[in-house]
Amino acid sequence: MKATVYHGNHTVSLDEVPDPVIQHPTDAIVDIEYAGVCGSDLWTYRDQGAAAPNRIGHEFVGTVREIGSEVRSVKPGDWVIVPFRYSDGTCRFCRQGLETSCVNGGFWGRETADAGQGQAARVPFADGTLVKAYADGHRPDESLAAGLLTLTDVFTTGYHAAASAHVQPGDVVAVIGDGAVGLCAMMAAKLLGADCVINAGSTHADRNELALRFGADQIVTERGDDAVKHVLSITGGDRPDKVLECVGSAQSFATAIHMVAPGGTVSYVGLPHGVSIDVRDLFYSNITVTGGMSPARHYIAAVLPAVLDGRIDPGPVYTKRYALADIAQAYDDMDNRRTIKPMIVVR
Amino acid sequence: MKATVYHGNHTVSLDEVPDPVIQHPTDAIVDIEYAGVCGSDLWTYRDQGAAAPNRIGHEFVGTVREIGSEVRSVKPGDWVIVPFRYSDGTCRFCRQGLETSCVNGGFWGRETADAGQGQAARVPFADGTLVKAYADGHRPDESLAAGLLTLTDVFTTGYHAAASAHVQPGDVVAVIGDGAVGLCAMMAAKLLGADCVINAGSTHADRNELALRFGADQIVTERGDDAVKHVLSITGGDRPDKVLECVGSAQSFATAIHMVAPGGTVSYVGLPHGVSIDVRDLFYSNITVTGGMSPARHYIAAVLPAVLDGRIDPGPVYTKRYALADIAQAYDDMDNRRTIKPMIVVR
Repeated sequence: MKATVYHGNHTVSLDEVPDPVIQHPTDAIVDIEYAGVCGSDLWTYRDQGAAAPNRIGHEFVGTVREIGSEVRSVKPGDWVIVPFRYSDGTCRFCRQGLETSCVNGGFWGRETADAGQGQAARVPFADGTLVKAYADGHRPDESLAAGLLTLTDVFTTGYHAAASAHVQPGDVVAVIGDGAVGLCAMMAAKLLGADCVINAGSTHADRNELALRFGADQIVTERGDDAVKHVLSITGGDRPDKVLECVGSAQSFATAIHMVAPGGTVSYVGLPHGVSIDVRDLFYSNITVTGGMSPARHYIAAVLPAVLDGRIDPGPVYTKRYALADIAQAYDDMDNRRTIKPMIVVR
Repeated sequence: MKATVYHGNHTVSLDEVPDPVIQHPTDAIVDIEYAGVCGSDLWTYRDQGAAAPNRIGHEFVGTVREIGSEVRSVKPGDWVIVPFRYSDGTCRFCRQGLETSCVNGGFWGRETADAGQGQAARVPFADGTLVKAYADGHRPDESLAAGLLTLTDVFTTGYHAAASAHVQPGDVVAVIGDGAVGLCAMMAAKLLGADCVINAGSTHADRNELALRFGADQIVTERGDDAVKHVLSITGGDRPDKVLECVGSAQSFATAIHMVAPGGTVSYVGLPHGVSIDVRDLFYSNITVTGGMSPARHYIAAVLPAVLDGRIDPGPVYTKRYALADIAQAYDDMDNRRTIKPMIVVR
């Protein structure tokens, strides 16, 4: 079968790889129908030090082809959503909904695990990993599939920003960043009842428009202290209850901490790059810093009904479609900001 | 009247100062009966750059002598607890229980406010600041008064560590530090239902004994990675759900972050000194950092009944009594670790 392999130095290609087979009785084989390219795939693509050659991709959905003898929750023909990490579903952390810390879990495309930008993948711990959306050969159309594909990572990551900050009805929420995760964080904040969502630091006109579609009530194009001033002019002087930091830079964190109300929360969900916080900047105002790597598997159950019944439509975060054969073009377009986020149509 | 004045360079003295008078209709005058010396008083005492001369002290209790025309919640003869900051009781932050961020509030001993290690003090915003424990001239004995005096700062600060970490029944909680705040944090964690409280980094035999009295189930005398190892040997390998950081040093924070369970919380309540956190150390394990300056006023109502009915007795955190005339000796003893925390008997 064909799968995307990262070869180092800004190079990915669609290579012939071995067909996946059941290795453990808890495995399933999934025929992949749609896949996404994530911002973190791009870090690998740009990172001269990343391991290569290596299978890549961790946002994928598709149909179960085969299951091991101990798999109980899915069967061949089920259409499933695959979170960006696999997890056993039974350990201390899985039981508390923090599947990203599963003691037996792992990332796709590392060591012996397959990855998601290919025609199929072996899924370890199928019962603890897969979430069934449709049974018996039923499947969504491409538009709805895009929305469901966001649950593998990008939407549930944005949702983690809002959920870990405990966004609740009545809150004024600022979202810093207008990338794919930031857009999903805005939609999640609205879904959780935020009264007013302000997108700060959004400087691209096309993204402004998407931000409004994803739930922003107000757009603030400035960054840093100017963004704080503009936000306060919108709220009548009250700092936001929650600030969702969706950039991951030192400047963005500093703005978030400077912007949030006393007693408020700054949550972040992207891997921070070179960000350190002086705890004294939090102390007097009792600011909480929370978030981290989203337990996507935990949130899928909570948000799946909202996608299926159309209350939210995060699918448009995928701004361009590519055939699997064009995977190199998809990476190149995303790397050069010609598209926010590619969706790969595998079959 | 007499009050303690800080003169710089490790020097405090009991000086003659003007008697307090009602300046605003929301003021009250309190005759001080007991006062405490706080660790943060010691920072001032040791800080060559602190403003001097300046009134000092912010842990005090006593009897209302006089009230302004608009004061409704207390009257002369009431025995009151005075939180370590005054607050108006009506602003956005006071209404949400974060009186330390009161827009009209302030610290004792700054600008025009009196301080607590003296015979009396003018209390601004009496309705928003004072908490009545007894009416009509009733008062506690000295032992119970010590417990109530802790509510002005040290106990409610330890309580903030436990409360902001959302300590709940069943939790395994580690408390780093065996100072007065750490001791109170242990007691607060137990009060909130913690299943197991482990005091880490306690190296003084006399403090070990106090820690057991304040609710520690286990004592770990090591620091750093050795403390983490010892804690894991106690819990059978599970990291603590919550770690209450009660030292405020870079090493202590690093240990706390290294010790806590994935999905867990590190809370801190002392002003951190030179502590910066690399957010990446929090990311993969979804560690929350919270806490800050305790809204003592908010917590007094919650814990006052437990002190009055004897469920908890935080009074022994004051390890030695001094007459007000001996205030300089009290500071010197605390500075040289001859006592953990002095209690000043004013009258």
